[in-house]
Amino acid sequence: MFSAVDVIRTKRDDLELSTEQINWVIDAYTKGVVADEQMSALAMAILLNGASDREISDWTAAMIASGDRLDLSRVGKPTVDKHSTGGVGDKITLPLAPLVAAFGVAVPQLSGRGLGHTGGTLDKLETIPGFRTDLSTTEFIDRLADPGAVVCAASDRLAPADRRLYALRDVTGTVESIPLIASSIMSKKIAEGTDALVLDVKVGSGAFMKDFAMAKRLAETMVRLGDAHGVRCRALLTDMSTPLGRTAGNALEVAESVEVLAGGGPADVVELTVALAAEMLALAGMPDADPAAALADGRAMDAWRAMVVAQGGDPDAELPRAPESEVVVAERDGIVTSMDAYAVGVAAWRLGAGRARQGEAVSAGAGVEIVAAVGEHVSAGAPVFRLHADDPERFDLARRTLTGAVDIGDSVNSRELILDRIG
Amino acid sequence: MFSAVDVIRTKRDDLELSTEQINWVIDAYTKGVVADEQMSALAMAILLNGASDREISDWTAAMIASGDRLDLSRVGKPTVDKHSTGGVGDKITLPLAPLVAAFGVAVPQLSGRGLGHTGGTLDKLETIPGFRTDLSTTEFIDRLADPGAVVCAASDRLAPADRRLYALRDVTGTVESIPLIASSIMSKKIAEGTDALVLDVKVGSGAFMKDFAMAKRLAETMVRLGDAHGVRCRALLTDMSTPLGRTAGNALEVAESVEVLAGGGPADVVELTVALAAEMLALAGMPDADPAAALADGRAMDAWRAMVVAQGGDPDAELPRAPESEVVVAERDGIVTSMDAYAVGVAAWRLGAGRARQGEAVSAGAGVEIVAAVGEHVSAGAPVFRLHADDPERFDLARRTLTGAVDIGDSVNSRELILDRIG
Repeated sequence: MFSAVDVIRTKRDDLELSTEQINWVIDAYTKGVVADEQMSALAMAILLNGASDREISDWTAAMIASGDRLDLSRVGKPTVDKHSTGGVGDKITLPLAPLVAAFGVAVPQLSGRGLGHTGGTLDKLETIPGFRTDLSTTEFIDRLADPGAVVCAASDRLAPADRRLYALRDVTGTVESIPLIASSIMSKKIAEGTDALVLDVKVGSGAFMKDFAMAKRLAETMVRLGDAHGVRCRALLTDMSTPLGRTAGNALEVAESVEVLAGGGPADVVELTVALAAEMLALAGMPDADPAAALADGRAMDAWRAMVVAQGGDPDAELPRAPESEVVVAERDGIVTSMDAYAVGVAAWRLGAGRARQGEAVSAGAGVEIVAAVGEHVSAGAPVFRLHADDPERFDLARRTLTGAVDIGDSVNSRELILDRIG
Repeated sequence: MFSAVDVIRTKRDDLELSTEQINWVIDAYTKGVVADEQMSALAMAILLNGASDREISDWTAAMIASGDRLDLSRVGKPTVDKHSTGGVGDKITLPLAPLVAAFGVAVPQLSGRGLGHTGGTLDKLETIPGFRTDLSTTEFIDRLADPGAVVCAASDRLAPADRRLYALRDVTGTVESIPLIASSIMSKKIAEGTDALVLDVKVGSGAFMKDFAMAKRLAETMVRLGDAHGVRCRALLTDMSTPLGRTAGNALEVAESVEVLAGGGPADVVELTVALAAEMLALAGMPDADPAAALADGRAMDAWRAMVVAQGGDPDAELPRAPESEVVVAERDGIVTSMDAYAVGVAAWRLGAGRARQGEAVSAGAGVEIVAAVGEHVSAGAPVFRLHADDPERFDLARRTLTGAVDIGDSVNSRELILDRIG
């Protein structure tokens, strides 16, 4: 017989929670027997006192057990997923999922929506006319078998305890805990049924983790958690001090992704897409596959078109555009030496691309285009950013957000995009 | 403009909360704008990261400001209250309030009910036929003027934020925090309007604070808080490893208190009553008053009878008795060397004297009588305890609770009742 107060006190007093205590408290929370005010006190105690690998693994298992664990064996292909901890201009899922699927690997990409300054993959794909992200579990598994890449919303039955806990953490200052972040991400990915998983852990101003050491600890924790639950895992730590690519905004990022799938696109987006694809293909048993070639020769584009069509979208339809635009210009001549990813993310949000609260609508066409990226020359008075919005009243706030976001100097070191590799 | 998450994060990150943050969060919590799950996360962060004297003082002020602060100037006498942190057999308020009132001092004793193994003063007094503890504020102030001692329930309008926060802490494992305990006690006492306050901080197995150093820190924190808010304060640290007196139970403790008021009663109860009375009288400007004499010559008894009558009770009525009794006997000959206060308190509770949840009824007559106290000789097979209950089925559990609660040996050091004095 357990009591919530005893479980809270155990962690509060910096003792280890038993497997039975963890199973009980997650189950009781899911059923409403443990109240929100009890779980938030426990979450704060975990945030401040930490948790052992065993506790994190048990916590993750208990969250998985709160709902269904999908069985993807019917797919008949290796399954490999990718998870990014979120950043500004991070549209990598869009070219990556079809690129990997082009090699005969199934990519079960259950994605989320944007909140605050980071965009959401579902919001981006929904700018494609007809594209559906609300697939049933049967549709999800069918499309994994063919065409192989699926990007859709997670069912309510995957780790429902995490869903409730995440919403609670958001309002109680208990988000920033490695045990809680790692178990939240991994419970959903493990419940999804994937064989393997590549993690893209972002570091820098535009990322959730501003600090390299913290990001590395999170990556290591997640890789160990995957291993403990039979999901082969690798993690790349990647730079998010600068936005990825040249766009932040829903349809703007789809257009940029299509450029990458056509063999072009910004070098950093291509580099990261190819690096993550190589990791995913290696985990699927194809260490020698050449993803760059599949971008160059059209195989990735074919897989993209097949994915869009399979989810009801029209790959040839024109993407929505925002009716209003304005430029932000450089104050001096020189080389762009830095561009703050966080400021660009917030500006895109202010322009209408993001939401402040779950459930709010977002603009398809709004966002920020980067005209002069880091390392490029710009003349005084020439545009650095082009802003897009449905309503011109939004420009003023976005413009203020971008004040001081760009440094212009004489020279810049080349940017290191992939900072470390774990697993 | 404040947000609950920002306030929680400040304390979580071990930074100091500003006066404005504290005022806002307590006010918003009282109004329901800050939710229970947010306040419990904040309480856990305070418990684990602590709080400065300035934060504790502001927190206390904000809880006072959530309701009314009584003005006792109309009483026309010095006012001195006593607060005990609670123990087993702690009936001291009953003889103490009339004893101090016998010297012309008003004693505004707003008391509580028992919960768990500690008894409640209101539950004890309500065993006196006719005694009313639910006085209006006007009745409370009238009776302070004459006869001078009043023991009643606190109004809902005194520190309502504390009332809500205390109930929350009880279910979220956030009780054991010195800043939160000190501000909870002192907000009610300061709001009550007393000029001065003597604190009886209990230490030992039967007390909330098991540890001397913690109890001393709590006492010092409360004395500083009183000073900061214009209430003259002193604290005694007193032993609660052994029950006070020879009874634990509602009517049993009233009867024992009447013995003390009649000039008799157990030595420890008399010693502590006289010591606390001397501190209270000193704070009221009478450092040379002789409370022991007032117990001996009947003045305290007269004040008791006046208090009981003023609150509707009959001081001559017979007290309720439990119909069933049983004894617990000694296993060997010798001197009682120790008696665990916690076990005795739990036994009294199991017998019906206490409640597990707020609002439950308690038995008037149930409880534990100590036949052989610490330092006394007992023969094998002779009674150590006499148990009283309304229902004989309760004896078994109480008996098991008392297993191992008493040590019998050859000699014992004399007990030190008053361990320290602060202020």
